[in-house]
Amino acid sequence: MPPLHDVAHLAHLELRTPVLEESVAFFTDYLGLTVNGTVGDSVLLRAFDDYEQTTLKLTPHATSGIGRTSLRAASPEALDRRVAAIEATGHGLGWVDGDPGTGPTYLFTDPDGHEVGIYYESEWYRAPAELAPSLKNQAQAYPGRGVCVRRLDHVNYLGVEVETNRDYLRDTLGAMVTEQIVLDDGSVAGSWTTFTNKGYDAVYTRDRTGTAGRLHHIAFAVDSRADILRAADIAIDHGVFIETGPHKHAIQQTVFLYVYEPAGNRIELCNAGARLVLAPDWEPVDWTEAERAKGQAWGLQTIASFHTHGTPPVEGVAS
Amino acid sequence: MPPLHDVAHLAHLELRTPVLEESVAFFTDYLGLTVNGTVGDSVLLRAFDDYEQTTLKLTPHATSGIGRTSLRAASPEALDRRVAAIEATGHGLGWVDGDPGTGPTYLFTDPDGHEVGIYYESEWYRAPAELAPSLKNQAQAYPGRGVCVRRLDHVNYLGVEVETNRDYLRDTLGAMVTEQIVLDDGSVAGSWTTFTNKGYDAVYTRDRTGTAGRLHHIAFAVDSRADILRAADIAIDHGVFIETGPHKHAIQQTVFLYVYEPAGNRIELCNAGARLVLAPDWEPVDWTEAERAKGQAWGLQTIASFHTHGTPPVEGVAS
Amino acid sequence: MPPLHDVAHLAHLELRTPVLEESVAFFTDYLGLTVNGTVGDSVLLRAFDDYEQTTLKLTPHATSGIGRTSLRAASPEALDRRVAAIEATGHGLGWVDGDPGTGPTYLFTDPDGHEVGIYYESEWYRAPAELAPSLKNQAQAYPGRGVCVRRLDHVNYLGVEVETNRDYLRDTLGAMVTEQIVLDDGSVAGSWTTFTNKGYDAVYTRDRTGTAGRLHHIAFAVDSRADILRAADIAIDHGVFIETGPHKHAIQQTVFLYVYEPAGNRIELCNAGARLVLAPDWEPVDWTEAERAKGQAWGLQTIASFHTHGTPPVEGVAS
Amino acid sequence: MPPLHDVAHLAHLELRTPVLEESVAFFTDYLGLTVNGTVGDSVLLRAFDDYEQTTLKLTPHATSGIGRTSLRAASPEALDRRVAAIEATGHGLGWVDGDPGTGPTYLFTDPDGHEVGIYYESEWYRAPAELAPSLKNQAQAYPGRGVCVRRLDHVNYLGVEVETNRDYLRDTLGAMVTEQIVLDDGSVAGSWTTFTNKGYDAVYTRDRTGTAGRLHHIAFAVDSRADILRAADIAIDHGVFIETGPHKHAIQQTVFLYVYEPAGNRIELCNAGARLVLAPDWEPVDWTEAERAKGQAWGLQTIASFHTHGTPPVEGVAS
Repeated sequence: MPPLHDVAHLAHLELRTPVLEESVAFFTDYLGLTVNGTVGDSVLLRAFDDYEQTTLKLTPHATSGIGRTSLRAASPEALDRRVAAIEATGHGLGWVDGDPGTGPTYLFTDPDGHEVGIYYESEWYRAPAELAPSLKNQAQAYPGRGVCVRRLDHVNYLGVEVETNRDYLRDTLGAMVTEQIVLDDGSVAGSWTTFTNKGYDAVYTRDRTGTAGRLHHIAFAVDSRADILRAADIAIDHGVFIETGPHKHAIQQTVFLYVYEPAGNRIELCNAGARLVLAPDWEPVDWTEAERAKGQAWGLQTIASFHTHGTPPVEGVAS
Repeated sequence: MPPLHDVAHLAHLELRTPVLEESVAFFTDYLGLTVNGTVGDSVLLRAFDDYEQTTLKLTPHATSGIGRTSLRAASPEALDRRVAAIEATGHGLGWVDGDPGTGPTYLFTDPDGHEVGIYYESEWYRAPAELAPSLKNQAQAYPGRGVCVRRLDHVNYLGVEVETNRDYLRDTLGAMVTEQIVLDDGSVAGSWTTFTNKGYDAVYTRDRTGTAGRLHHIAFAVDSRADILRAADIAIDHGVFIETGPHKHAIQQTVFLYVYEPAGNRIELCNAGARLVLAPDWEPVDWTEAERAKGQAWGLQTIASFHTHGTPPVEGVAS
Repeated sequence: MPPLHDVAHLAHLELRTPVLEESVAFFTDYLGLTVNGTVGDSVLLRAFDDYEQTTLKLTPHATSGIGRTSLRAASPEALDRRVAAIEATGHGLGWVDGDPGTGPTYLFTDPDGHEVGIYYESEWYRAPAELAPSLKNQAQAYPGRGVCVRRLDHVNYLGVEVETNRDYLRDTLGAMVTEQIVLDDGSVAGSWTTFTNKGYDAVYTRDRTGTAGRLHHIAFAVDSRADILRAADIAIDHGVFIETGPHKHAIQQTVFLYVYEPAGNRIELCNAGARLVLAPDWEPVDWTEAERAKGQAWGLQTIASFHTHGTPPVEGVAS
Repeated sequence: MPPLHDVAHLAHLELRTPVLEESVAFFTDYLGLTVNGTVGDSVLLRAFDDYEQTTLKLTPHATSGIGRTSLRAASPEALDRRVAAIEATGHGLGWVDGDPGTGPTYLFTDPDGHEVGIYYESEWYRAPAELAPSLKNQAQAYPGRGVCVRRLDHVNYLGVEVETNRDYLRDTLGAMVTEQIVLDDGSVAGSWTTFTNKGYDAVYTRDRTGTAGRLHHIAFAVDSRADILRAADIAIDHGVFIETGPHKHAIQQTVFLYVYEPAGNRIELCNAGARLVLAPDWEPVDWTEAERAKGQAWGLQTIASFHTHGTPPVEGVAS
């Protein structure tokens, strides 16, 4: 079955932080995002090549973790179709006013309990004079500050059961499963799915603590692999903690750098875009335990904290 | 209207050459394509990350120019829908056996007379041992030879009337128009359209000679802008003619290098992928004559031959 | 004759500007230099990987142009030897206190009248806590702001007679001539010379206005060619005028971007370092008019203003 | 004391291999070197931007390991001075005919027993038509094959005592010590020294087996960090064993990839050149055990085999 295309793309994400000011500084100074207003106590940020109002919403909270994931539907009809499908699963929460610049939003959860909103109406971003780009096919001036991420790339949830969440994304939202980690016992420890021609937009990996609703990481795209190395240079000289990388994932072949923002949420910089998934009949690539044991693409063994650190932290579990 | 997604992607192209052997050498030695068999007198070539059998078909011919453009439909139903729409336009030519590895193909032309085929069935490429990649999510080993292009990127036709051809792509095939050159007299001198999240898959620019069915260029994607510079280094030391570049297009922001293969067909190397078009309600970006007069993104004036050289050449017209 | 090595390297430069504040903003925001104090009315700036106190001194002046060029001698004995040689030419001006962080400096001019100082004593830069690097073999934290130039690279003077100035650099200061432009009449229109293993540190090109003491450009080094492209992206979105580039010089093979700082002084970003001159018996590579007519390395024709724009401007001469 | 400059640069190296044919294939197909003749049973290879005849001499041998290291003196007088100094140490072996294209060579050993030759006369390489470059300031056409290394970069010997060998390089040959690993007991476990403006040309690290005369690795330079990543891509798809990397060294800040050639000799690809050592009064940067424990520049822990694998292997020692 080809992908449905009712979901156009991952639109924006909400992260929770007990240290709002430090988190805002990280995303503006290090990543190069721009503040684009506030709503309630939350700060809205955007990447220079995202066409909508918001890329990331930072919300003060007692803990770290992920808040709402926002998806944009491909049309009003596509929105209606997806809402009907969601309601049929019993995971629907109902219609709410959307985030600034977006229209009516239907709220729901994935089986793991992560909150998701879907909407169609969206007011395109128009840059003020001081952020105006030179080329009219670009939303905002290239920041020239920090990592200069181009756009939001993907979200990687932790899930108690990967299979249930994967099926939900595929069957209810129309995502295509592109790659998976299939353990020797046949269970799926990780699932990469996409709404677009990118290899992945939403990922589930198994939460080893058995806790629902947590986050592994969110990711922002830069243009090239050299940009990832540069992001690492900036990190070490500006007090940003590097967990692992730069290196190249075997799965999806993305070159990665994982850092923690001040609240402890894991942030990936990746070079999504070079490799695309164009085949409408793409079959999931299943990676075995033996294949995973070989390490990442160039041989790096996956770091232990990659299997333990999630947000918010779980009491009694090392991260 | 959001794009239809009935056409999954541009699949492969046929180029005509009176100097087959030299052309094959160019595409294998310089671009890094691999020969994947022959059909009739034609040689079939492929880029390492294309999942189907064929990326490029080189066919001996009295002149240079483009032969058939092959599109892959998203599903059998999508294929049926598009064939019905094509037949309704009167441009249909009928069903034929497809190129090796592809199923039944419906032939037609665009209004300008370029031959196009659309099919759904496709036998995925499986690399022989000597071309096997290290990572199972990749079709073929990275060549490590010449430019090492990743995949076919786009085709840029010359057309007598851009508007007619643009409308055909949009209305009959479901493409999305992403950018255009709109002259002061209101006519459209160039149109960029896409079937995917890439900014463009098929382009029409006006043929100043008024000749139908010609080619401006075909393009192959590399991963980064640095790869384009490297392609220029290889070109000058291996006798490949550089027409213009490297530089960055204002339209679509692709970094480009234009070279001629031995038959005279113009070949572009580009870094498509960093910038994606994710918005389902993208409005065409219209570039005016005044804006075009500013040159390319970093200021380079467009070279004269870019407006005159097409293949096959037209008698009495300088190229 | 091998190079003398009495001059260790080009140390720092002084630029004149009638718009000091705008010039400081350009060098800090766009290039990523850091202000490191003032002396008199001048502002001192430094690149993150230069080990001495100062990379660039910006001095308020009625016009644009270059002030003093500062060279560091390889030892106290080397300094004495060079001072003796300079005095023998009659171009010596005498000892003065050096710029902040440098010891006694002997002032002189080249035959064209550009002011030069040579010194040995130098107080190494020690970064304050907020600019401290992560790695102790680096002078200062990587800025993560603007182009992030690594170091001063070279100076390109305009000279009335290239030969006289070239011979002075070679015979009095011990530079090695690495490349030249030799016109059909046998005269030398450009001369590239080095004190180090870099291909060039000081260049003379002929001033077509016949005016002495002017500047063609000064250059800063970045790490890679991709960094030059990124510098062009930042330029167009932040109001920096690009004169020409990015492209690759045939001479010295450097990839270049030429911009003007607010006072009109031409600034080059280049990727010096990949290619080194290690041969002690290097013979000057002489480029003929016919070879120059082929354009730059990848074919770009040299822009007209490259032959006319110098600073300060000459009345009645277009630039 | 400033460096002497009597040694112009590391000229070429000899590697020993029991599998000559496989080793030649590795250096030509993977690294992109070109065969430039033979001498005796040895095969001579060169990198495209090295100006002399030979970059690497591959010699059939019962074991892996390093043969002669060849240094080029800066002048005939410099050669005489160094020979006199070497003879004074008692390590001299006498004059021999040089490798093809080089003049009389004085043979000696370092205190650890590695064989070294020094010469001045050198016949510059002139490329035959099929290898002629486009630009006359380049020795040979850019290969466009495999990693495309630009030049030989450095040699890293294993030594029983680092200090003794370091002092010999510094005091007898005039090298500058740029960085060191100084253990808590005050002994030196690694020493980086240079004859040029590169950060290092010759390195000694302690041989933990106490065996004299062994090799840790030899290194070739590419132009950019992105080239190192590409070298890793080529390696995994062409059966080249990656030991570790790509990552960035804390010491010298080079981005590295370590692979083994078929005989087991460790080969590094590095991006030497971006960072230069220009200061004539550079003081060695000493790294402590605590600093080394932090891992490489971006945090990678040094791989165990990096401390054990040397060539030739030592019986009874894991590598």
